[in-house]
Amino acid sequence: MLRVTVSGAAEQRADLLAAEEPMEIRVDGAALTVTMRTPGDDIDLAAGFLFTEGLLARLDDVHEIRMCDENVAAVTLKPGRTLAAGPGSETAARKFLTTSACGVCGKDSIEAIRTRSTFDVAADPVRVSPAVLADLPDRLRDAQRVFSRTGGLHAAGLFTPDGTLLVLREDVGRHNAVDKVAGWALRGGLLPLAGHVLLVSGRASFELAQKAVMIGVPVLAAVSAPSSLAASLAEETGLTLVGFLRGATMNVYASTQRVTASASAPVAAPR
Amino acid sequence: MLRVTVSGAAEQRADLLAAEEPMEIRVDGAALTVTMRTPGDDIDLAAGFLFTEGLLARLDDVHEIRMCDENVAAVTLKPGRTLAAGPGSETAARKFLTTSACGVCGKDSIEAIRTRSTFDVAADPVRVSPAVLADLPDRLRDAQRVFSRTGGLHAAGLFTPDGTLLVLREDVGRHNAVDKVAGWALRGGLLPLAGHVLLVSGRASFELAQKAVMIGVPVLAAVSAPSSLAASLAEETGLTLVGFLRGATMNVYASTQRVTASASAPVAAPR
Repeated sequence: MLRVTVSGAAEQRADLLAAEEPMEIRVDGAALTVTMRTPGDDIDLAAGFLFTEGLLARLDDVHEIRMCDENVAAVTLKPGRTLAAGPGSETAARKFLTTSACGVCGKDSIEAIRTRSTFDVAADPVRVSPAVLADLPDRLRDAQRVFSRTGGLHAAGLFTPDGTLLVLREDVGRHNAVDKVAGWALRGGLLPLAGHVLLVSGRASFELAQKAVMIGVPVLAAVSAPSSLAASLAEETGLTLVGFLRGATMNVYASTQRVTASASAPVAAPR
Repeated sequence: MLRVTVSGAAEQRADLLAAEEPMEIRVDGAALTVTMRTPGDDIDLAAGFLFTEGLLARLDDVHEIRMCDENVAAVTLKPGRTLAAGPGSETAARKFLTTSACGVCGKDSIEAIRTRSTFDVAADPVRVSPAVLADLPDRLRDAQRVFSRTGGLHAAGLFTPDGTLLVLREDVGRHNAVDKVAGWALRGGLLPLAGHVLLVSGRASFELAQKAVMIGVPVLAAVSAPSSLAASLAEETGLTLVGFLRGATMNVYASTQRVTASASAPVAAPR
């Protein structure tokens, strides 16, 4: 790598870049998808992806997930089990192979991207204080040792309501970072993640909000902006969506009752 | 939206979020893909996506692209024409339906994500000065009026070697922003984009580097970090990849000869 400055100076330097490699997810021998990801926690990524995309209804349907190559995760289902929305199923037909004629097709498209969560986040009674939330980005960054070296990784962190970090995952793709957390929780028997807070380092897209709901997390916080559709989904499902979590302020887009100063604050909370 | 501060103050505010909606791309009646995008320049997005993904070899194969619904782009090919990698083709079989047995499958997966460009960016003789490059992020941001309002949109800008902005496109997905630029150029008969610089507001992934090569852009610059695979692809194809383009410095990862202080600089270049 050549470090160049405006003055014209140039200097050869070594550089550590965020690793990105394609990973194919294969189910019972058939390729399902290829995702660009940062290698590591690949089994969690495969399990988390299948679950948050609504393709796998329960971990018990899985016989085995193993890497049959460094970039291929091979999922084997138990005999007689199929994906909830596998090839040939009605959901998959809607999701991947929609062929309806034009007309109501816009509605179909939106339907096609919606997955159904088995968990109801709307009923989650958890409360989180603004002071705890404001502290989370620093806690995430402190834990991101890889990030500080490459500057190129998104992060997703799962926290308790008092701000304790339970797990951190990183990836070049932010949806992958969330799927790695989801797979970790699924394989650890921790779903639904009721009473927890999921923090993502970047923006909050529809896709991330949907993944949060799929794993039963009641609070999704993002350092940057949410999208309009993420806010709509939060409104509809009862997910608390926190955006622009920077410094001492934050924007709360739905289910705002969960963010309250009367919630338990850390011992040395900033005022 | 509720604006909350650590002190416990909370205030209801109006907020403008970046629009995100699914768009389905349909070719000759069959759904090909659904992408989450910011509505606008949808025809360009559909054309650009098909071209940069190597599915459409030339615009001349297209009879018509129209929105048959606000979220469905319907592409009709000319009689007898097919996608370069459409359903049933060998490339599509590799790309979407890989079913080879395990073993060499890692290599297959990587092969599956590679597209072949009809343009050779390695031979492009263009030179760009560091002073011009350093100025581009500000020029892009100045042009991003929507960005300043919502804070949630990625941008891609196409520049001449002296720093003139030719086109700016924004989207919640950075790959979509690039595809909108690609479709604009394709439909305007401007490909290959020899002698141009493409700037993206975020990170440079493999996918973005590949799209740049597909439209014949010799210089891809990113405000943030490139990934390892983006740097590998740049090395392999002769693409100049500029990362961490911030302030007065930048990192150049491949084909560094194009970034040179002796290139034409703007009249009032900073020193």
